[in-house]
Amino acid sequence: MPVFAFTPVMMGIFQRALRLRTALRHLSPHSTFSSTPTAGPSPRYLCGSFPPITSWQFGVCCRKLHSAADGSKPSPAAAPDRLPFSTITQEDLAFFRKILPGRAITDPDLLESSNVDWLKSVRGSSEVLLRPQTTEEVSQILKYCNGRNLAVNPQGGNTGLVGGSVPVYDEVILSTALMNNILTFDSISGILTCQAGCVLESLSVYLEDRDYIMPLDLGAKGSCHIGGNVATNAGGLRLLRYGSLHGTVLGLEVVLADGQVLDCLATLRKDNTGYDLKQLFIGSEGTLGVITAVSILCPRKPKSVNVVFLGCETFEQLLKTFQLSRGMLGEILSAYEFLDSECMRLLNTHLKLTNPISDCPFYVVIETSGSDPTHDGEKLHNFLEEAMTSSLVTDGTVATEDSKIKALWSMRERVTEALTHDGFTYKYDISLPVERIYQLVTDMREHLGDRAKSVVGYGHVGDGNLHLNITSPAKDPALLAAIEPFVYEWTASCHGSISAEHGLGLKKRNYIYYSKPSQAVALMGNIKAMLDPKGILNPYKTLPDNLK
Amino acid sequence: MPVFAFTPVMMGIFQRALRLRTALRHLSPHSTFSSTPTAGPSPRYLCGSFPPITSWQFGVCCRKLHSAADGSKPSPAAAPDRLPFSTITQEDLAFFRKILPGRAITDPDLLESSNVDWLKSVRGSSEVLLRPQTTEEVSQILKYCNGRNLAVNPQGGNTGLVGGSVPVYDEVILSTALMNNILTFDSISGILTCQAGCVLESLSVYLEDRDYIMPLDLGAKGSCHIGGNVATNAGGLRLLRYGSLHGTVLGLEVVLADGQVLDCLATLRKDNTGYDLKQLFIGSEGTLGVITAVSILCPRKPKSVNVVFLGCETFEQLLKTFQLSRGMLGEILSAYEFLDSECMRLLNTHLKLTNPISDCPFYVVIETSGSDPTHDGEKLHNFLEEAMTSSLVTDGTVATEDSKIKALWSMRERVTEALTHDGFTYKYDISLPVERIYQLVTDMREHLGDRAKSVVGYGHVGDGNLHLNITSPAKDPALLAAIEPFVYEWTASCHGSISAEHGLGLKKRNYIYYSKPSQAVALMGNIKAMLDPKGILNPYKTLPDNLK
Repeated sequence: MPVFAFTPVMMGIFQRALRLRTALRHLSPHSTFSSTPTAGPSPRYLCGSFPPITSWQFGVCCRKLHSAADGSKPSPAAAPDRLPFSTITQEDLAFFRKILPGRAITDPDLLESSNVDWLKSVRGSSEVLLRPQTTEEVSQILKYCNGRNLAVNPQGGNTGLVGGSVPVYDEVILSTALMNNILTFDSISGILTCQAGCVLESLSVYLEDRDYIMPLDLGAKGSCHIGGNVATNAGGLRLLRYGSLHGTVLGLEVVLADGQVLDCLATLRKDNTGYDLKQLFIGSEGTLGVITAVSILCPRKPKSVNVVFLGCETFEQLLKTFQLSRGMLGEILSAYEFLDSECMRLLNTHLKLTNPISDCPFYVVIETSGSDPTHDGEKLHNFLEEAMTSSLVTDGTVATEDSKIKALWSMRERVTEALTHDGFTYKYDISLPVERIYQLVTDMREHLGDRAKSVVGYGHVGDGNLHLNITSPAKDPALLAAIEPFVYEWTASCHGSISAEHGLGLKKRNYIYYSKPSQAVALMGNIKAMLDPKGILNPYKTLPDNLK
Repeated sequence: MPVFAFTPVMMGIFQRALRLRTALRHLSPHSTFSSTPTAGPSPRYLCGSFPPITSWQFGVCCRKLHSAADGSKPSPAAAPDRLPFSTITQEDLAFFRKILPGRAITDPDLLESSNVDWLKSVRGSSEVLLRPQTTEEVSQILKYCNGRNLAVNPQGGNTGLVGGSVPVYDEVILSTALMNNILTFDSISGILTCQAGCVLESLSVYLEDRDYIMPLDLGAKGSCHIGGNVATNAGGLRLLRYGSLHGTVLGLEVVLADGQVLDCLATLRKDNTGYDLKQLFIGSEGTLGVITAVSILCPRKPKSVNVVFLGCETFEQLLKTFQLSRGMLGEILSAYEFLDSECMRLLNTHLKLTNPISDCPFYVVIETSGSDPTHDGEKLHNFLEEAMTSSLVTDGTVATEDSKIKALWSMRERVTEALTHDGFTYKYDISLPVERIYQLVTDMREHLGDRAKSVVGYGHVGDGNLHLNITSPAKDPALLAAIEPFVYEWTASCHGSISAEHGLGLKKRNYIYYSKPSQAVALMGNIKAMLDPKGILNPYKTLPDNLK
């Protein structure tokens, strides 16, 4: 045990530790203890739907991302030239109206929200939005478009962050919004099958009534579709506990570019009969086929959930606390997230959220979920006592009630929203060896100096996933030139991934070589050519331009 | 609560329940209670290596599986005609000896064990066994063989059960046995990278010293290679808890048929930069590329492990007990396995193992693993009390000490061994909706009547995976004709899988259509043609003959 010399700073730490210790003495499954915020943060955002877009966002971003309007060299993120697909004719529209009566939308006002992504950073100019209800209808649409050489943009909830979910030019938008039926649920195995357009939150509500939960959870759950989640291999907040969709998705039904229906909609935990084809479509961002139905393994609903918000003096301490939590919380650890003091400043400045604990350089959100409230409380108590005793954390608060849990979670989840109020945001979603993830933020801050307004880091420590965000008062090509390729080169030097969970979409497609060797990218191109020889499915996305 | 009428039968049940209840009162993390076997079963078998093959097995099985020696129509499992690959020349051998000095084996005695599978059911006639040590050497071998049109049989620990791991004719055997180095281990993230030839048990020992475990465990762990595990998408005993290799394998290095090295050896939990190519090779049985290195996410070593052996009167009660265990054991449930009374009879007859509890129609092995021995013991106590009170189980015993745990596990794990002593065994590895898995055994027993010696069922209830085994005094084409296609048609009618975890290999390749639609199989054929245009990699395996 270290021997303390009670400097004024350490006295403060000690007092805060005492506050947490007092909380620990009272920790029980049905009460919240310690210093809860005096003005509690508003409820967990994005549970219902995305927040309204501010006029600022519209004003700044409504044109092609990083386009070279100023005559400078186009960014690798800019849209390439339109490929020689056919353009929509009246005959095409007549066909679509015939097979989808009342569901082939051409009214420009109704098309608007499907042509623009949520960040308002990419705008397409599609003239038709198709809303099939069945797999057979999707098959008819693709067979027709493939025959006519019409490009197609498959669209789920349109919540993607890399410009993958909207047309780039005049692609036909194929929305899964009306394919929202739950097909089967087996209450013994926990296996759910549903159409691709089911909204993630609707599925969660359906399952919670049946004592199960979805194996994934993310901020956009009120809008995103399960088909889109699978197509982008969404990560989110539960990956640490339940793993990736490559493990939890048991089956897919996919319509291929030529309209063929590929039935891999198994509802079995184990099936080693040939190559696992469904895996190809998980994370392929709609470029290899249109996912029409999903079968997924759902975990039991936990009987007890606790959330802790802690402060650490250094990132090294934060990592040691992570290690401690893995050992002492073990099987009940379900999330280990972090944000830095810059995030806290933005939450405070832009959203008026109050720091629930004293100021620290780093904050941690730990969630536990388990089957026995008493056991979970004891494990948490022992962990927190050890974390304090060994001075890994300097302050903290615990929540066991639902409303307080949501309040603490919002400190992590509303960082994205706070950033939108800080200025034009350059967003990076990086995977790194966990011990390196904050070094990138520090290095970027030093590299940019006062050229950036804010440089913040937050994300999923448990998954080695950093969300690095940089703001400036307005779009700033010089700042961008200072960020890129620096951020990608830094990531590549650590063998990291330049897109941990957001995908490549339009914006990141040409940066793929920072994370994948050329042989791998060439093989991806071969797979694309095999499954979609005319390239009609979500063109300009995922694969780099030099393959096309 | 039900009111008991104490019939003699129920009195017996009640007395047995009392025995378990007495055990429960004393349940603690460091002792074994209740009726442990008077003559304890021998230690968990196969921890070191496979047991010796009996002379009986050699005598009966040393020729091509289901071959039509009697002039009857060949079984779909029989080997097809040799494809027009080149044959090995002295120049070829000279090349191999040059690049692999002392590691190009041509001595027939040394080749013997690599030409025959563990079940002694398939024998190839390869004249050369290559033992590369590096990825570069594998690359040189494949580049050469592809150029020369020489077929190659990639071989790991040669523990497969479907004839996938040995040559069918004179394929060059490419063994990963000397590629057994651990490359890196990150003690923060738990991510291990190693060469493909590392033996699973060696990796387990390495990790346990570092407070981690492998996410998979199987009977053959003393012999099987991690590369082979990945190539066959091995399931095993921990799948219920840690999921499939599609989720836990983070990266692969693969040498393609033409010698190109595909580096997908990421060590990141999240990476959404393009298609997840490594997934293609997981479960492809060496037909798409040779896996040379693996990166895998390893769980923390549990601090507490308990095993319970229970008896149930009906399979319905066994399923209800499963549901109860999922609810009450929750996050600490790590295995839920079963065997029927016929398995118990064979264990008793052939291996002299004593039933640790009273005779029942069905037996369950439940394993818990967690981070707190006291909590785990309490959860187990509460679960067992509820299972008894509601009369779901009629007898049981609990083990918390390592030796007793191994003894109870052996009742499940040694069923395979007991079967080898019962006669010629027809083995089926079926996935079904969990509520249907035992019906197949019952139906098969009725269907075969006294034509079979034994019809037994055991397996992984938690994964919906039945091992159906049928024995006869000797190989019996008439019995086989009664079993197949009955077993496959039955499985297909329930949308099950005709190979849950063993793969298709040589033996099951032509049955693929029972579990996969023709479009899917055709697409698999396209993938094979894309990656291995000459078809040199593990020919006659996985894909059906009519694709070739």
